[in-house]
This record gives sequence, C-alpha cells and structure tokens, in this order.
Amino acid sequence: METTATKSDVCPPTLRWQGGVDGCLLLIDQTLLPAECREIACRDVETVWEAIKSLRVRGAPAIGVAAAYGVCVGLQSALSGDIASCLARVTQVCDYLATSRPTAVNLFWALKRMHRVANDLNARSAQEIAQRLLEEAQAIEAEDRRMCRAIGRHGAELLRDGQGVLTHCNAGGLATADYGTALAVFFAAHEDGKQLHVYADETRPLLQGARLTAWELQQRGIDVTLICDSMAAQVMREGRVQAVVVGADRIAANGDTANKIGTYGVALLAAAHDIPFYVAAPSSTFDLSLASGDAIPIEQRDPREITHGFGRATAPEGIGVYNPAFDVTPARLIRAIICECGVIQPVDEATIRRTLHLTHR
Amino acid sequence: METTATKSDVCPPTLRWQGGVDGCLLLIDQTLLPAECREIACRDVETVWEAIKSLRVRGAPAIGVAAAYGVCVGLQSALSGDIASCLARVTQVCDYLATSRPTAVNLFWALKRMHRVANDLNARSAQEIAQRLLEEAQAIEAEDRRMCRAIGRHGAELLRDGQGVLTHCNAGGLATADYGTALAVFFAAHEDGKQLHVYADETRPLLQGARLTAWELQQRGIDVTLICDSMAAQVMREGRVQAVVVGADRIAANGDTANKIGTYGVALLAAAHDIPFYVAAPSSTFDLSLASGDAIPIEQRDPREITHGFGRATAPEGIGVYNPAFDVTPARLIRAIICECGVIQPVDEATIRRTLHLTHR
Repeated sequence: METTATKSDVCPPTLRWQGGVDGCLLLIDQTLLPAECREIACRDVETVWEAIKSLRVRGAPAIGVAAAYGVCVGLQSALSGDIASCLARVTQVCDYLATSRPTAVNLFWALKRMHRVANDLNARSAQEIAQRLLEEAQAIEAEDRRMCRAIGRHGAELLRDGQGVLTHCNAGGLATADYGTALAVFFAAHEDGKQLHVYADETRPLLQGARLTAWELQQRGIDVTLICDSMAAQVMREGRVQAVVVGADRIAANGDTANKIGTYGVALLAAAHDIPFYVAAPSSTFDLSLASGDAIPIEQRDPREITHGFGRATAPEGIGVYNPAFDVTPARLIRAIICECGVIQPVDEATIRRTLHLTHR
Repeated sequence: METTATKSDVCPPTLRWQGGVDGCLLLIDQTLLPAECREIACRDVETVWEAIKSLRVRGAPAIGVAAAYGVCVGLQSALSGDIASCLARVTQVCDYLATSRPTAVNLFWALKRMHRVANDLNARSAQEIAQRLLEEAQAIEAEDRRMCRAIGRHGAELLRDGQGVLTHCNAGGLATADYGTALAVFFAAHEDGKQLHVYADETRPLLQGARLTAWELQQRGIDVTLICDSMAAQVMREGRVQAVVVGADRIAANGDTANKIGTYGVALLAAAHDIPFYVAAPSSTFDLSLASGDAIPIEQRDPREITHGFGRATAPEGIGVYNPAFDVTPARLIRAIICECGVIQPVDEATIRRTLHLTHR
C-alpha cells in the first residue's frame, strides 16, 4: 500500500480522484486520525475493498463515492480487452466491492448506478466505458458535495443560537465528499452565526467520535466537548443538550434507521429527556425496498475491536464478545429526517415517499 | 511502592492485613488487571490514599475496608507517643483519607466508625488504641464478607434459571472483601444451580467491566459476554436480558443511587424495555443524611482517562472533555435495592428506613 504523509493542518479531502481513466483514488486513512493524516493511493480494486472493510474510509456517503471510484480502478485491468470482457469486469468488480461491508446501503446504491451506466451505454470501446464510468463516479462525488450543503441548510433551521447538541459517531466531512450530514447541520448553523456547543460521543469500539468528530469540529473552531458514550444520559439530564443529530447507514421505507451501534440507545435517552432526535442523511441512504428496519442486515465485527482497542489487551483472554457494528432506531423515536430534498416530518412511509419523489427517485 | 507479582490463577484476595498492629495492608493493584495480578504493600497512609485515588483499590465497600486499614497503617507512626497525640493522629489520618475520593459514602462511614472507636475507648496506651482499631478494621472486613453472602442470597431469589442479566462497571469480589454485591447475586444464583448469561458493559473510561467483571465471571466459570456500553440498548432490544443488577456508591434517603457513570443511562434503557433494574449494596452505602440524590457530590476525573485511555492518544490534543465518574439513578427507575438485611421494595424512604432499622442503624 502506497501512502503519503501530510501535516494534519493541511489535510487533503476525505477522498479524491487523481488523473484520468488511468488515474488512482486517494483516500485519507482514517484509522490513523487524528495522530496522522496520511493518504492511501488505491491503484487496484483490492486496496479499495480493504480500505472500506477496515474503515480506512467509512461513513455511508463516503463509502458510496469510494466504491464508485473503486469500479474505475478495478476496470483499468480490462481496458485492453473487448467491450464484452470490459462489461464482465464491471460486473465482477461491482460484485466484489459489494462484499466489503453489508449495512450502509449507499455502497450498493453507488455500485448499482455504476453497473447500470456501463450497461446502458452501448459503448464502442472499453475506453469509452472507462471514461463514462469515471464521469459517473465524479458525478456521484459532486452530488454528494451538493447534498452535504443542502442538508446543512435544511438542518441549520432546526437549531437555535446557544443550543447544546449531541452527536454519535462521525457523520462529518470524513464520512462524505464534502462536510458531512449530521455535522453539516452544525457547520451550516455555525456559518449562520449560531453558536453551538457540541457534545461528541466517543463511540466505542473504534472511537470515531473521539478521533474524527472531535477533530473535525476542533479544526473548524466549533465548541466541542468529548464524552464517553455512557455519559450521554447524564449530559442530557443536566440540561446541556437541546437536540441530537446523527447520520445514517440505511433507512427503511417506514423511517427505521440503521446507524452506528449506540444510536438506538441515544434515541431512547433523548426521548426520556424530551430532546428532539434528528437523523441527517441523503436520499441515497434510503432503501425503500425494505418495509422496516427489521430487514436491515447488521454487520458483526471482530471481537478484537473491543478486547484489543488501540493496540493492547483490555479484557481477559478468551472472553466472549458481542460486537454488532450498527443498531436500528425505530421511526417513532426520530423527530425528523434531514435530507437534501428537505426535512421529512413526521417520519413515516407516506411522508418519506412524498419527499423523495420530489427528487425523481 | 513495594509490589509482589503473583500468577493470576492464584490471585490473592482483593485486600488483606498482614501481621499485627505493626503489619501492613496488602492490596491487589486493580489498574493492572487482568494482564497482571500484583499486590501493593501499603506501609504508610500516603500509599493507601494514592491507591484509593488512583483506583488501585475501588468499589465502595472495598474502599471502606481499605480506609479502615489505612487508619491502622497511618497510626503506626504515633505509637511511641502519648494517648493524646495518638488520638490526634487518628483524626489527622481520617481527615486525610477522607480527601481521597468524594462520592462513595462507605469511605466516610468507615472512617467515622474508626474515629469513634478510638475516641470512645478511654485507652491507657497508644498501643491499646492501635490494637482496638486493628480489631475494628478486621470487624469491618468480616462484616463486609458476611454482607456479600447475604446480598447474594437475597438477590439470587430474584433471578431465574436461564436468564440473561446485565451489569455495569464492577461490583464484584474486587469491589468488596468477599465476592461482591451485584456479582454476589450472580455468584449465589450460580451456586443455586441457576445458569445465567451475563452481559458485562465494558464501562468506559477505565474499563472496569472489561478488565475486572469479565475476568471475575470467567474465573468462576460463569457464562459472560463483554459488550461496549453503547450496545446495552441493542442487547435489551434483542431480548437477551431479563434483569439488570448494579452496585452503588451512595444511596440517598429516598433511594436515589449514585453509581459508576453510565448507570443512569442503563436504568433508562431497562425501563424502556420493561426490564427490572436492581441495585445491590450494603447498608453502609446508604446516606440517610441526604434527602435525595441531588445532594450527592459527583467526582470529576482527569480528562486523560478519556483521551489517553488505551495507553496512547485517541483524541485530538487540547480537546474539551467532560468526565464525571458517577451519575445518579432516580429511585423511580429502581425496582428494588438488594441489601444484606433484605430486599427493599418499593424503593422509597419509608421502606428504606424500615428495612435498615432492622439492622439497628
């Protein structure tokens, strides 16, 4: 794996394509943040797969963009062949990348879109397919950037100056091509001159809140306090928080929302304290083929994420561990879903379908 | 600091007195568990103070016993003096040890008891005071052992064979002189032939659940699964847990209970899933001078426990941190308090006073 170190105060974007159809995908290796801001150059699809699997790139929208560029990288080995073998390679690469992680639907959404574009093209050469797919990946990235800004704008209207807000995991710039979903709401409110005090759950086991969210907010000069996940209830009880905003990995047709493990608990705690709980996510995170959250596949991850967090054993050898990476928050606990097409409220199937329809899906 | 390494499969008791009035207090250094089971020999009161402050010995009942022996250690420097200077030293040592940690009331309870014994004695020599105080500390330890067994017996009746149970932090043998409060309930149920499946919250920031509770249960052959604190809600939602049992650091007259940070959140989650939430604690943990939990002082601890919890920085430098060591669970969320004198249910001031009165407090 080829890497490039950069200083964290000039950290490059979360992901970027370098060059033309024979170029490569550059990703920040998020497992090294905040200590080190280092890019990985992905020149084969296996490197992209591993980067998604190992959470070097993570966050549903960013996974979608990375996968789209991953198709471009994977196709490079088939450019000297004929159109049929090139299309076969597209299918193979899409199928392969789809096995990297199971929960975030943006991965499958992006791969399906890339696959369809290649097959609908009636191309005259492999090169033409490659060119068109690179354009499509760039379009997905550009849409993701616009999505972040739109979500930020819609969400910022829900927050007032001086409020305390809480977020779980990282739904920031590092989870998207631009400046996030949940964090976009905070960034946009901040741009509007609203002072917020953000409480960031550290988000065990992989500490995306401590390592990524706290870092992003700090870098943008937003007041942030890091807490352990177990402190959210107390912070709410003390009246420090007036809203919760989180991202999403997959949203079912009825609004049930899969997000990082711990989100469901935070939603219950918010309900117990009469604090509105918001989900911020793009339309690509909705999976209308699933009637409810019960059908969302939940990834189980390596027990060592819990027992060997950060390089040393913190639990007895051989201990049993349960490590689901996500949970599902039922729609009834979600005050509104903040989407690029607007604020979905109440959170129910009719309102979701009506709002998403406006964007021609 | 003098230490003795022992193999963890022959781990000594949590604490023990070695020798006569000129002896010393031996404590397992719990910050090293489970990797290493090493005893500290406390030959001066400063070492006892530091051991309590740094959580080398922790858990409300164990802190009480350690403090009682700490008075004996502290007195040793005054044994060649007269009675007045010996009593002055008792006061000085008690005042000093009382500054080690603010929340667990057992500390103050034990120190008050030692102080009263010394002053009520009408001793004829410093040696006599020392001898009597050692006997009192040994009595506190012996009572603590009996208390554990009684709590276990009372609590075991609340659990059924085959149940899943969840606990937070460590209220086990390492938190007491014998085999715990919350964990005593599991151990006693296990001795009765009931198979339990225990879910242990890892308990950030210091991971007492992962390091201590999981280890104790594993050592006694009880089925245990380690989870991150943020997974408790999901484990409850999946129907894996039929009861929650936790310890306590201080219980106000109305039943409001201070315990390790995160306990209040677990109690809210249990309520949301209709799962009974039990507190297991000895009568020495009640502070009837406080009308409610609002008056319980909550210790704030070093931000580095959160930002440097795994031996290396896991959060950006200079980040704001909130690190309360405890929270207060309101009585309304507690189904019953399991005490050595019986099961207090409903949890209200009248029932608490009536039950504790039976033990002549």
